[in-house]
Amino acid sequence: MIISNLNILQFAFRMSLLPPQITRAIEEFTKLPGIGPKSAERLTFHLLRSSRASPEALGKALADLKMSLKYCEDCQMVTLREKCAICEDAGRDQSTVLVVENPLDVVAFEKTSYKGLYHVLHGVLSPLDGMGPEQLKLRELMDRCAGGGIAEVIVATNPDVEGEATASFIKQRLAGTVPKITRLAHGLPMGADIEFADQVTLKEAVEGRRAL
Amino acid sequence: MIISNLNILQFAFRMSLLPPQITRAIEEFTKLPGIGPKSAERLTFHLLRSSRASPEALGKALADLKMSLKYCEDCQMVTLREKCAICEDAGRDQSTVLVVENPLDVVAFEKTSYKGLYHVLHGVLSPLDGMGPEQLKLRELMDRCAGGGIAEVIVATNPDVEGEATASFIKQRLAGTVPKITRLAHGLPMGADIEFADQVTLKEAVEGRRAL
Repeated sequence: MIISNLNILQFAFRMSLLPPQITRAIEEFTKLPGIGPKSAERLTFHLLRSSRASPEALGKALADLKMSLKYCEDCQMVTLREKCAICEDAGRDQSTVLVVENPLDVVAFEKTSYKGLYHVLHGVLSPLDGMGPEQLKLRELMDRCAGGGIAEVIVATNPDVEGEATASFIKQRLAGTVPKITRLAHGLPMGADIEFADQVTLKEAVEGRRAL
Repeated sequence: MIISNLNILQFAFRMSLLPPQITRAIEEFTKLPGIGPKSAERLTFHLLRSSRASPEALGKALADLKMSLKYCEDCQMVTLREKCAICEDAGRDQSTVLVVENPLDVVAFEKTSYKGLYHVLHGVLSPLDGMGPEQLKLRELMDRCAGGGIAEVIVATNPDVEGEATASFIKQRLAGTVPKITRLAHGLPMGADIEFADQVTLKEAVEGRRAL
C-alpha cells in the first residue's frame, strides 16, 4: 500500500501531472512520525481547500519555529533567553530537581503546587527509535548534580516501559552524586474506578499505601 | 482529554512557560483533520529535534503550496497554467469524461491505458463533513456536459457509501444532457482471494460476469 502510493507520487512527478509544490508538501509531511503517504495527501489537499486551516499560517508557524529558540542552560527547557523564567526565579527551592521527558510536562507540573526546579530530558531511552543516552539531555543533568547544591532528584518520566527504563538508568548514573533520588508515586489516579484498574496499578497502590 | 490538553497550552501561554512560536505551531497543527492536541505536540517537538524532517523545509513547502496554483478551467485538475496538460493534449479522446474525487485519482488512471479526459470533483457528497453539492466541482461538470461534444461520462468515485451516493447524484443531474453515463465495474480485484472477498463484492462480481 505504502509502496504503491509512493510510486503514484513519483509517477505524478515524472509525468508532471501534479504541480511540484503539491508533491513536495506531501513528501515533507511523510517525514513526520505517524503520517504515511495517504495521510500526507489528505493533509495537503485539506490545506488547499480548508477555510479554517491555511497552508500559509502553518507554513509561517513552522518556518518561525526554531527562530531565536534556546534551551535553558540549566534545565534545558525551551525558552527565548539564556535561562528560563523558572530557573531565574530565586524564590524557588533550588535544591530539588524534577526530571521530566519533555517541556509540556513542565507546564503540567507548573499547574500543581510544586515549587522546585526542573530538568527536561527531551525524550526517553528508546533504542528502536534511535534514542540512546547521548540523544537525551543526561550529560547536562549529571553535570548539574555533580556541581552540588542539589538535595533531591525526583524522576518524573512516564510510567511506561521506556519511562521506567530511563528512570533506572538515571538512578544508576546519579548514584553517589545526589543524597536522594526519588520516583513519582504509582497508584490509582484520582477519580479512577478500582473495578477497571489494571493489576500492576493495583499492586503498586497496595504496596505504596499510606497511613490514613 | 482534549479539553484538559488545550488548557495546558492556554496555561503555558498565559504563564509564558513556552515560547509563543511553539504554542502557535501546535495550534496550527490542531486545525488539521485527524490531528488532536497530543499529535500536534508530538509533531511540533519532533520537528524541533528531528534531523530528517525540518520545520523550515515543511514550512517553506506549505507557504509555497498555493503559489501560482490554478485549477484547470476544463477539468478542475490542479495545474500551474490555465489548462492542464491532459486537457491541452489534442490527441486524447475528447468525447469521454472520467469523473474522479481528487487529483491523485487522475494520476492513478494515467498509469492505465485510459486516453479520455477527466473531471475532478475535489471531494464527495458527505453532509456530516459539510460537503454538499455546492462544495464539489459539480456545476462545472454540468456546464461542461451541457456544452455538448461529450458522448460518455464515466463516474469513477470510490465504491464506498459517499462515493456511491455521489455517483447517484451525478446520474440524476446529468440525465438527458449526455448520451451515456457509466460507472466503473465492481468485482474482484486482481490477485484477490475469493475465500476472503466480502459478500457485496462477490454478488457484484456474479452480476457483472462476462463471456470468457
